[in-house]
Amino acid sequence: MNRKMVVFTIGKLLKVEALLLLLPCIVGVIYHEQAAIAYLVVAVFTFLVGTLLSWKKPKNQNIFAKEGFFIVGISWTLLSLFGALPFMLSGEIPSFTDAFFETVSGFTTTGSSILPTLSGISQASLFWRSFTHWIGGMGILVFTVAFIPIASGRTMHILKAEMPGPIIGKLVSKVSVTARILYVIYTVLTLIQILLLMLGDMPIFDSILNSFATAGTGGFAMSDAGIAGYNSAYIDGVLTIFMILFGINFNLIYFFIFGKILLVLKSEELRGYLAIIALSTLLITINISSQYPSYLKAFRYAAFQVASIITTTGFTTTNYDLWPMFSQVILLLLMFVGACAGSTGGGIKVSRIQILIKHAVQELKKILHSHSVTSLRYEGETISAKTMGSIHAYLVLYSLVFISSLLILSLENSSFQTIFSAVATCINNVGPGFESVGPTGNFGFLSDVSKWTLSFAMLAGRLEMFPMLLLFSKPFWKS
Amino acid sequence: MNRKMVVFTIGKLLKVEALLLLLPCIVGVIYHEQAAIAYLVVAVFTFLVGTLLSWKKPKNQNIFAKEGFFIVGISWTLLSLFGALPFMLSGEIPSFTDAFFETVSGFTTTGSSILPTLSGISQASLFWRSFTHWIGGMGILVFTVAFIPIASGRTMHILKAEMPGPIIGKLVSKVSVTARILYVIYTVLTLIQILLLMLGDMPIFDSILNSFATAGTGGFAMSDAGIAGYNSAYIDGVLTIFMILFGINFNLIYFFIFGKILLVLKSEELRGYLAIIALSTLLITINISSQYPSYLKAFRYAAFQVASIITTTGFTTTNYDLWPMFSQVILLLLMFVGACAGSTGGGIKVSRIQILIKHAVQELKKILHSHSVTSLRYEGETISAKTMGSIHAYLVLYSLVFISSLLILSLENSSFQTIFSAVATCINNVGPGFESVGPTGNFGFLSDVSKWTLSFAMLAGRLEMFPMLLLFSKPFWKS
Repeated sequence: MNRKMVVFTIGKLLKVEALLLLLPCIVGVIYHEQAAIAYLVVAVFTFLVGTLLSWKKPKNQNIFAKEGFFIVGISWTLLSLFGALPFMLSGEIPSFTDAFFETVSGFTTTGSSILPTLSGISQASLFWRSFTHWIGGMGILVFTVAFIPIASGRTMHILKAEMPGPIIGKLVSKVSVTARILYVIYTVLTLIQILLLMLGDMPIFDSILNSFATAGTGGFAMSDAGIAGYNSAYIDGVLTIFMILFGINFNLIYFFIFGKILLVLKSEELRGYLAIIALSTLLITINISSQYPSYLKAFRYAAFQVASIITTTGFTTTNYDLWPMFSQVILLLLMFVGACAGSTGGGIKVSRIQILIKHAVQELKKILHSHSVTSLRYEGETISAKTMGSIHAYLVLYSLVFISSLLILSLENSSFQTIFSAVATCINNVGPGFESVGPTGNFGFLSDVSKWTLSFAMLAGRLEMFPMLLLFSKPFWKS
Repeated sequence: MNRKMVVFTIGKLLKVEALLLLLPCIVGVIYHEQAAIAYLVVAVFTFLVGTLLSWKKPKNQNIFAKEGFFIVGISWTLLSLFGALPFMLSGEIPSFTDAFFETVSGFTTTGSSILPTLSGISQASLFWRSFTHWIGGMGILVFTVAFIPIASGRTMHILKAEMPGPIIGKLVSKVSVTARILYVIYTVLTLIQILLLMLGDMPIFDSILNSFATAGTGGFAMSDAGIAGYNSAYIDGVLTIFMILFGINFNLIYFFIFGKILLVLKSEELRGYLAIIALSTLLITINISSQYPSYLKAFRYAAFQVASIITTTGFTTTNYDLWPMFSQVILLLLMFVGACAGSTGGGIKVSRIQILIKHAVQELKKILHSHSVTSLRYEGETISAKTMGSIHAYLVLYSLVFISSLLILSLENSSFQTIFSAVATCINNVGPGFESVGPTGNFGFLSDVSKWTLSFAMLAGRLEMFPMLLLFSKPFWKS
């Protein structure tokens, strides 16, 4: 393994994080907060460590799949470690475990919080929490590749390991240009959302932070009242639409911008994604209608919650823990479904589920027509045995991480629905779960062991299993 | 499709069921019960229907995989329908839905019951309930193939569809002889267990019925007190050992009898199965020790419950619903693991899980060593892409049936743990779940829709998805 190049790249990434840490520092200065100092100190420290690690550019700059996975797995862990320091240094989250959990939850765009209340948290830290969503959503390596030249080539392998979905499509032949296009679309959409929220009389700081949380499908609230606090059908509507938008494959948004509407309309994943949203919203609206004054109101809350959960954002405008079990189970299942591949959303991804079902149905058909051998097609292309093998492996590894986490969480003195939904919401990067970790609860009461377990589940979920699990492999530890 | 041969075979099977129905009839006569008449009437009726269906032997007697799956899917449904009639006719279970659920639960060796109490149930019906476990465990088609010549050849396809596990090994070249050997081993082991239970002062009728329930890994109780009522460490011990025994691949037991001990010891599945039992028992014993007067007592209950759940028998000697959540989650996970392939146990099967994990680990290794292509080996043999594809398809179809059932069950006004464990215990053919469907509860309170859903899940689980799901395919309905 090209260990030198792994270290070098991680050094570069830490330097990028150092620069990003200056943003909350500026916010702190604007609001005359002491926390600004914490962010400055950590930014300088992170920059120094990054500089040390990337001091000498290795001669052999080859990054293969292996190196790509290691870089992603290690860097996400390290970035979360360094990103957690300001919370501790400012005294806002004194516990290391808690600060790490909160930062992992931010970067992985989960949005689960250990904080029982946000009063007393500085604007700088609120900004940093939401900003980690934004940068983690599209990917910090994608960001780095887009704007900083790391290796002479081969950066595709880093992108592959960080970007969600079973198949990664390049928009243009050059990887760095693809990454840049993605970030431009991402930024423009975020800016539009900020403007639209401001038009709904949301304060500018709130608009920015809530847009970060939406764009990254993160879902950290920026006040104890959360989105419900704005009490505006307009804001709920804008958020619902933008959550759904950020759950769509960015390649499709790119095609849409460049007028290739047909290509967008033909997308199996997009159709499936929208169909699931429509059907779930319909079923939940009917199921909860008796709890709300009108069908329209029920629809508003149902649509918002469905969009929030399937895109794995995790905003809440109502306590869905009080909904009937049928609606609860639909939401729980949507956590697993997740958004589209190539979006900022988490979960298993609609495309993966569609391909898995297609494969299973094909196996059923094989029994009926023993002689016909047809290849598996998805989005107009043949799914190779290699891709299929990796999707199946993902499913099994995902299940193993889920089960192991559930087993560890069961040491808590909590209900089954609490621990099951805690693992589900973390591994799928959603945010809230049910009961004790539901919309009115938080993750603060959990033991440190549970928090570390869930932190791992969040990272494994965001990076789609392989990078985090490879950190346990022998070649990684042997020199 | 060779529809005539499908109908003919099903007719034969109904005739076999008619003969089997005479056994509870005889029990009823011995105990001077009115229920005897119900069993006689249904036996005659079933025989007539069977005779009508198998009136003319088709010229084309070919049975391919397709026909095999259809025969198994339809016959298990029909056998349960006819088998439910005596319960209704005798007035012991008047509701058609309930009687069907109970019979499906019997044949699929699940052991979930809708009966809140067994007082008032005739000995004839108690016998029939337990006997359906015994015949369903090894398989009624295997039984038929063993003793009645159906088709000139090709019966392997029927066995394949009925026998559990990813890979079916024939013991000898002739299918009917293999089936006969299996039933002989099965019968002898059952007889030994009956004798051992009688040595523990269990009444003979109880010994027979409890042995039927153990051998088939069914778990229907024959009194309200269940196994706990005997209050005997000896009986608990015998049952624990025999439950574990009946969860082992019968091929291995055959090899063991014929002195091929090395072959038995080398079995990856057996090792995995025993390791899981040992580890689970250890963890639960420690976890529950404070609830029992001594470690030994805790061990006795832990070992019994672990054996009962992993083999999907479902006997209970203690209310494990009162155990800590950690032990509960272990038991819940064991429900999914299930026993070994080629045993009478249900669940996903140890071998399937081992192969799935091996494949996933191999995919991880591929990232590290991109050039090495190694084939997947299990039990000393290469797993073909075809087998792998069918195992993966099974996993996905299993998940889909599970999720659909959970969604329908969520319409119940029950807790998440109740509905989740109800589906888990039925699809895996275990028996009891947790909370309302736990050791002290039953399935009677559920709605008819839920009962039909769970009946389907039990059949789909026992027949390992494919046969039941193919019943929804177009070729089956088109002539």
